[in-house]
Amino acid sequence: MTGPRYTPLVDALPATVPFVGPETLERRSGTPFRARLGANENVFGPSPKAIEAMARAASDVWMYGDPENHDLKEALAAYHGLRPENVVVGEGIDGLLGYLARLVIAPGDAVVTSEGAYPTFNFHVAGCGGVLHKVPYRQDHEDPAALVALAATLRPKLIYLANPDNPMASHHPGRLIEQMVEALPDGTLLVLDEAYVELAPEGTAARIAAEDPRVIRMRTFSKAYGMAGARVGYALAAAPLARAFDKVRNHFGMSRIAQAGALAALADTEWLEQTRRKVGFARERIGAIAAANGLHALPSATNFVAIDSGGDGALARRIVAELGARGVFIRMPGVAPLDRCIRISAGRPADLDLLEEVLPGALAAARESVTPA
Amino acid sequence: MTGPRYTPLVDALPATVPFVGPETLERRSGTPFRARLGANENVFGPSPKAIEAMARAASDVWMYGDPENHDLKEALAAYHGLRPENVVVGEGIDGLLGYLARLVIAPGDAVVTSEGAYPTFNFHVAGCGGVLHKVPYRQDHEDPAALVALAATLRPKLIYLANPDNPMASHHPGRLIEQMVEALPDGTLLVLDEAYVELAPEGTAARIAAEDPRVIRMRTFSKAYGMAGARVGYALAAAPLARAFDKVRNHFGMSRIAQAGALAALADTEWLEQTRRKVGFARERIGAIAAANGLHALPSATNFVAIDSGGDGALARRIVAELGARGVFIRMPGVAPLDRCIRISAGRPADLDLLEEVLPGALAAARESVTPA
Repeated sequence: MTGPRYTPLVDALPATVPFVGPETLERRSGTPFRARLGANENVFGPSPKAIEAMARAASDVWMYGDPENHDLKEALAAYHGLRPENVVVGEGIDGLLGYLARLVIAPGDAVVTSEGAYPTFNFHVAGCGGVLHKVPYRQDHEDPAALVALAATLRPKLIYLANPDNPMASHHPGRLIEQMVEALPDGTLLVLDEAYVELAPEGTAARIAAEDPRVIRMRTFSKAYGMAGARVGYALAAAPLARAFDKVRNHFGMSRIAQAGALAALADTEWLEQTRRKVGFARERIGAIAAANGLHALPSATNFVAIDSGGDGALARRIVAELGARGVFIRMPGVAPLDRCIRISAGRPADLDLLEEVLPGALAAARESVTPA
Repeated sequence: MTGPRYTPLVDALPATVPFVGPETLERRSGTPFRARLGANENVFGPSPKAIEAMARAASDVWMYGDPENHDLKEALAAYHGLRPENVVVGEGIDGLLGYLARLVIAPGDAVVTSEGAYPTFNFHVAGCGGVLHKVPYRQDHEDPAALVALAATLRPKLIYLANPDNPMASHHPGRLIEQMVEALPDGTLLVLDEAYVELAPEGTAARIAAEDPRVIRMRTFSKAYGMAGARVGYALAAAPLARAFDKVRNHFGMSRIAQAGALAALADTEWLEQTRRKVGFARERIGAIAAANGLHALPSATNFVAIDSGGDGALARRIVAELGARGVFIRMPGVAPLDRCIRISAGRPADLDLLEEVLPGALAAARESVTPA
């Protein structure tokens, strides 16, 4: 009586997961967090119109959602000045990255990304047997020139870049990305993750022609639109690539409630503007709190701020733990030298009051525990 | 300037989709359906407590759902007398079938199913390069003996059986499935799709030991619980297999709203009981409407009824089209000899009033169009 026979690829995969959720940490500690500032969620929430649309859609949930996501694709196409044929809707950017990896990555295929960039992209590439090649960040920015130089040698199937970047919150002007596209080797697809772009300075979004086959842009309702828990992401791509997703996607995978919420959220441009302002204030306040504690906050083009701990990864890890013990959930980059920083999501005034209150004690405790006696 | 290089597997996949949604049909015809009885959705809807829980969760949607689905897994484990380690929660059974295919199917691997059984399973197997081998239905039932006999020869990675069955609504007693498990060849995993089992006669659910490595059972909140649009399915399996899903699943793929709804729905056993009764009445009424039109309705253990058209697939296809033109959305099996039938989901009284009203005209028109002049 034996179990299933996994593929050799699956047998070789580690059992690690990209992120441990805050609920898991709460269960481990037995105490709920008082401020949830670790997952780059948008505490300011979705448009009240989106909440209303979702609450209303709950009564219609006996029906499957439209597997073609027709209305949402039409609205997104109009918003971006594209055709619906250029839009793919999926279960968050994570879901779309998974489908994309399946479309292009076979075991042994090369993929290029940055050391310390989005782990879930790596998870999906590894899940298809892709081989990841990484270049370091350069002055806390992803390094388009180095990425392209490595791609010229390897001619990878995919090259990943987030603009703005997670976890450092840095950004490049869109025209730099446009130049990067021109320099890509033939047959290399740029995965341009613009999850945070609505919160970035004007000009950060790259201008890519609708049918440019060299780039796929990833967008989401999880960040600026405040709907992380609804799972709605979308990709903008040339029509043949967008259509290819139909070969592997979960056609009935989208929640009907999420479809309704995203449609309403997209239409409420005023709420998005308010969110931008609130996020801007929160970024400034986090910077001020850091400064008051003698720490340097890096410039942010997102709804989170990376703060230099003034030490190394060991110190930053202690600060994350000490803040957690004081009820403030934050995260930090995974690899050196980025991991000298902690990463704090934009919070409401009450969230940041708590941060301000507990940070000095957390810092002191962290420094004490990493300093040899 | 070339596009992405797809995998050879993806290049070879057809662009067909498993099901065309009712919204697509409505857009094509320009007229909304007046009765939606084609997708085996549960028109009686979810528990009002689940609707309330989902509406409430809409305000919390700025937070990602718990990637471990901890609370829902605990509740499901308690409900089934298993441990949470035996439960996998995913984006509907469709999503779970996709993950399962990725875990075990490499190009060329054999898979056994029935000719005319669930197309989405086939879609996911083909998407991983699996080779499908099929046995015919026997007297409108899936045929466990024939499936096992073919498996003995092929030793497939997966063998699929739905109990109750879709699209014929037939069922086997659970003990027959238990015998089937004992007869499986070593290393063949039975995918036991029990999507409709809550609506079947007592004794239909197979009793499988928690840690039996030979079976994975698929369940859903889409059918008896009336939450198709929320996308919540789950699998029950031995702990090592359940854990393996972590290697490939979209960890943050579950909607927070859906998690809350499923928890509330599971707790409302009284609503489930009511649904069973309503579905039972609807089945009987569909049978009576069929009989009044000189047609034979097959016995049903689900929330839909297969009705023998009295002709072949061509006639059944015409009936589906003629009912659609009269505002009634239904579907039908895809292959002979099952495709002599049409398939009608349990409807509310008003839905079935409409069916009763338009069926005679639809039948007459269908018969006329397939009879040579």
